[in-house]
Amino acid sequence: MNQLKIFLIVMLFTAPPLFPGDFKATSQSADSIVKTALRDSTGYKLLESLCKIGPRLSGSEQSVMAARFCLDAMKKLGYDTAWLQPITVPKWVRGTKENAILKSGKGKKLRPLSVASLGGSVGTNGSISAGVIEINSFNEMKSKAGDIKDKIVFYNVKWDQGLVNTFNGYGRLAGYRVFGGIEAAKYGAKGFIVRSITTRNDNTPHTGVTYYNDTLPKIPGLTIGINDADYLSNYTKTDPNAKVTLEMNCYSEGDVPSFNVIGEIKGKEFPEEILTVSGHLDSWDKGEGAHDDGTGCMQSLEIPYLLKKTGYQNRRTVRCVLFMNEENGYRGADGYADLIKNDGKEHILAIESDRGAYTPRGFTVEKDTALVGILREYLPVLRKAGIGWIEKGGSGADIARLNTVRNLIGFVPDDQRYFDVHHSANDVFAEVNHREFELGSASMAVLIMLIDNNDLIK
Amino acid sequence: MNQLKIFLIVMLFTAPPLFPGDFKATSQSADSIVKTALRDSTGYKLLESLCKIGPRLSGSEQSVMAARFCLDAMKKLGYDTAWLQPITVPKWVRGTKENAILKSGKGKKLRPLSVASLGGSVGTNGSISAGVIEINSFNEMKSKAGDIKDKIVFYNVKWDQGLVNTFNGYGRLAGYRVFGGIEAAKYGAKGFIVRSITTRNDNTPHTGVTYYNDTLPKIPGLTIGINDADYLSNYTKTDPNAKVTLEMNCYSEGDVPSFNVIGEIKGKEFPEEILTVSGHLDSWDKGEGAHDDGTGCMQSLEIPYLLKKTGYQNRRTVRCVLFMNEENGYRGADGYADLIKNDGKEHILAIESDRGAYTPRGFTVEKDTALVGILREYLPVLRKAGIGWIEKGGSGADIARLNTVRNLIGFVPDDQRYFDVHHSANDVFAEVNHREFELGSASMAVLIMLIDNNDLIK
Repeated sequence: MNQLKIFLIVMLFTAPPLFPGDFKATSQSADSIVKTALRDSTGYKLLESLCKIGPRLSGSEQSVMAARFCLDAMKKLGYDTAWLQPITVPKWVRGTKENAILKSGKGKKLRPLSVASLGGSVGTNGSISAGVIEINSFNEMKSKAGDIKDKIVFYNVKWDQGLVNTFNGYGRLAGYRVFGGIEAAKYGAKGFIVRSITTRNDNTPHTGVTYYNDTLPKIPGLTIGINDADYLSNYTKTDPNAKVTLEMNCYSEGDVPSFNVIGEIKGKEFPEEILTVSGHLDSWDKGEGAHDDGTGCMQSLEIPYLLKKTGYQNRRTVRCVLFMNEENGYRGADGYADLIKNDGKEHILAIESDRGAYTPRGFTVEKDTALVGILREYLPVLRKAGIGWIEKGGSGADIARLNTVRNLIGFVPDDQRYFDVHHSANDVFAEVNHREFELGSASMAVLIMLIDNNDLIK
Repeated sequence: MNQLKIFLIVMLFTAPPLFPGDFKATSQSADSIVKTALRDSTGYKLLESLCKIGPRLSGSEQSVMAARFCLDAMKKLGYDTAWLQPITVPKWVRGTKENAILKSGKGKKLRPLSVASLGGSVGTNGSISAGVIEINSFNEMKSKAGDIKDKIVFYNVKWDQGLVNTFNGYGRLAGYRVFGGIEAAKYGAKGFIVRSITTRNDNTPHTGVTYYNDTLPKIPGLTIGINDADYLSNYTKTDPNAKVTLEMNCYSEGDVPSFNVIGEIKGKEFPEEILTVSGHLDSWDKGEGAHDDGTGCMQSLEIPYLLKKTGYQNRRTVRCVLFMNEENGYRGADGYADLIKNDGKEHILAIESDRGAYTPRGFTVEKDTALVGILREYLPVLRKAGIGWIEKGGSGADIARLNTVRNLIGFVPDDQRYFDVHHSANDVFAEVNHREFELGSASMAVLIMLIDNNDLIK
């Protein structure tokens, strides 16, 4: 059996693939897609322009400028049609003040902390001064329930660098940022501070959404850079009477008009069958939303163009959808789900890229697991763009909400550096490598080509 | 057959591995190695200290300081023995002048170009002014043979971004830098300028070794940043009488004493059987030699420690060898090859890491190809550190010279960003990601553990 297994493994790596269709032609199309992406860098150059517009917080002027920029780019790249889908999105404004100042128990001002208001947070309506209670898990919080009233809760839960998959690391901590305000309010806290969720050892705050519960008081929340989180933790251990003064004038404006951006190149044989590539156009406001998710948008925008440029005649319609408001509401995804529910078309696949511009590793298949085995047969072609595996797994936050799309696939690039920059001032174009970015575009374009050309989804 | 193949692929990804020994224990050891590497970052912190010493050009004071630093680190990390192996290395000194100034045909000084002397180049002994002849291939050079005399040859061969594997891209261009002086001297050129070999679109010159032939005149050589290469190319097309003035005071000092650094943790069962991990300690002098190859050295230095720290009792001796002078002479590798030729030990394996601190992708096996199949059986364990494949292929420039070592393996991390920084001022510690670095250490440590524990090489 061992001998057999060795033989089979060797076969898998060396034997010509057995899938239907003309392997040589398919393989040459893939080569052409990869080379064109890497040589032309069309998507990467678009990302540079997109990032120059500025961050794209839902409801902001820049987010609408970005939507118009993308619509224009689709037309310039030779899409058959491109349009804006009107939606409404919640508008939150960071304001001009987001301060947290540490003072000793004797009232001496020690230093301002490196903080950022959490997305969706209420402001402080003046300022709030209170003692700090450090919390290292929601369980610990229950045991300290009686000590929380009128305090500022400081969630200081550390990233576990030992986890190889950084999305697992993020998953363990995101709850403190998202639900920390609700939990702290239950016990009468006046505000909360969350240790930034990041793999990088620096002092940059990493923001992100926080939610409230209408039955509880809404208390202001900030995130703190991890160096200052350590400082705050150490200092308050030596001076338990230390206080922090919060001053934030962020606020919510309610719903405002916005847009999804949709464009497509029509299929020559089956124009009513839609293969969708996607990303989300909104971003947080501290950097430029370069990796999250300007990358997924500009890769998706480039893919129909890449297929056309390299001479591939898509049999089905290839559509690019750029969702607004993934970060704090999913209104774009929900609006698009409504739009396609009864449009008379067959939405057979959606892919989402929302994990940054890093070297491709694999694809995850969310709905139809038979597709996993089918796609694995095509790994010899997908490897040309760096794809090493196909697994069952989640797809993307937006497309997971599209109930009428039959198959969902997530694009999975290398994840080691994503949370270095995620939701922070460091998520800028200069942190994006053009080759890593373009291999992402190419790997998704090759996947679309394989699925379309070989009827892998019927 | 398709169905069978799908089944087998699914089995390969989901079935428990069938290799001998206790899978659970081996798997737990691997987990422990990976977590410890990522959490402690011992090698990464050593790299920071190493980089603070400065660049480690063969024969330089810093290169010797670095060797002593590594010897000391081996002792501090609990190696059983560690020593310096005396060798001699060629010493080349960059000097204080490395200028190339472009002047118009009418003699107007236009601008200094962004250049760096090539390693091993002679100086200009004063200055040299000459017209420029652009060459885009050695073949083209033959056809322009009559136009080269008394000119400065400008090799302007561009990187092909379309190649997915950047080492292939490098391989196509390195010859112009290494042999460009010899070829140009054949036709009577006075000097040569080589377009920097890089994937990054900036103006930083990327140096590297150049060689001479004793039967031909030795002419000075520089590398030029690619933005200025484009400028020089464009300008000389509009003004063919333009001249470049070179002024360089680099020189060679001949051979000087230096060292390889060697240390080991003895095997408990087979102390005379040696498993070696390695990198090269010398570097170019423009940056800090962080990726090339401080990384390979500090990963190798960390590996015996990682095994010990996680409680693995190595049955064979695990040795770390840090070679001096890979960049311009291989004297360290050759000296070490002599040392082990008749030392009475069994050198059964050497691994080299010399491709930067990027996320692990695979291992290449150079000598014993049966090992490819054997190691592939262990991919379920190696995947814990990000290793996706085992292939036949080259190992490393140093260990390939060790004729008495039975098996050679090259560590292959992701290669998309390596030539952004390679041999340039941008090869600094700040460009190294701690998680990518440590996954490299972990993947090699796991490989050594698997080979040692399961008697994969006998």
